[in-house]
Amino acid sequence: MTMRRITGGTARERVARHLRTLRAEQGLSQESLAEKSELHRTYVGSIERCERNVSLDNVEALAAALGVDISDLLAPLELNR
Amino acid sequence: MTMRRITGGTARERVARHLRTLRAEQGLSQESLAEKSELHRTYVGSIERCERNVSLDNVEALAAALGVDISDLLAPLELNR
Repeated sequence: MTMRRITGGTARERVARHLRTLRAEQGLSQESLAEKSELHRTYVGSIERCERNVSLDNVEALAAALGVDISDLLAPLELNR
Repeated sequence: MTMRRITGGTARERVARHLRTLRAEQGLSQESLAEKSELHRTYVGSIERCERNVSLDNVEALAAALGVDISDLLAPLELNR
């Protein structure tokens, strides 16, 4: 059994946080990001709440809509707590 | 309609290539990687053939099994062609 502490947040947490941050920086609503990435608005909301086990193709679509590389959405978080 | 050329390979291509490389470096078969990551052997094979739209949780499990960060599996490829 392989167990490893995930530093920098889980993949879901990373994508959620980066989406929110980039969306805010670009002044985009969840709805407009959803439209640009051809996903449903409520789906984007649930990704930002870490509720979804998003597929690579959809993470890629979100990255393209935000004009960043997919690796930017998976970059480790600086967790200060 | 948002279209952007993906430099460094698509997400599927990146994960596929990095999996193969890391697996070879660590001397792991697809079967042993599958076992460590609690996925099915044929599933790991299809990921390495870019056939699967893998979910973040599964990419994370593969990263943990290989002892790398998930962002390492999504790092841009150096494509020389």
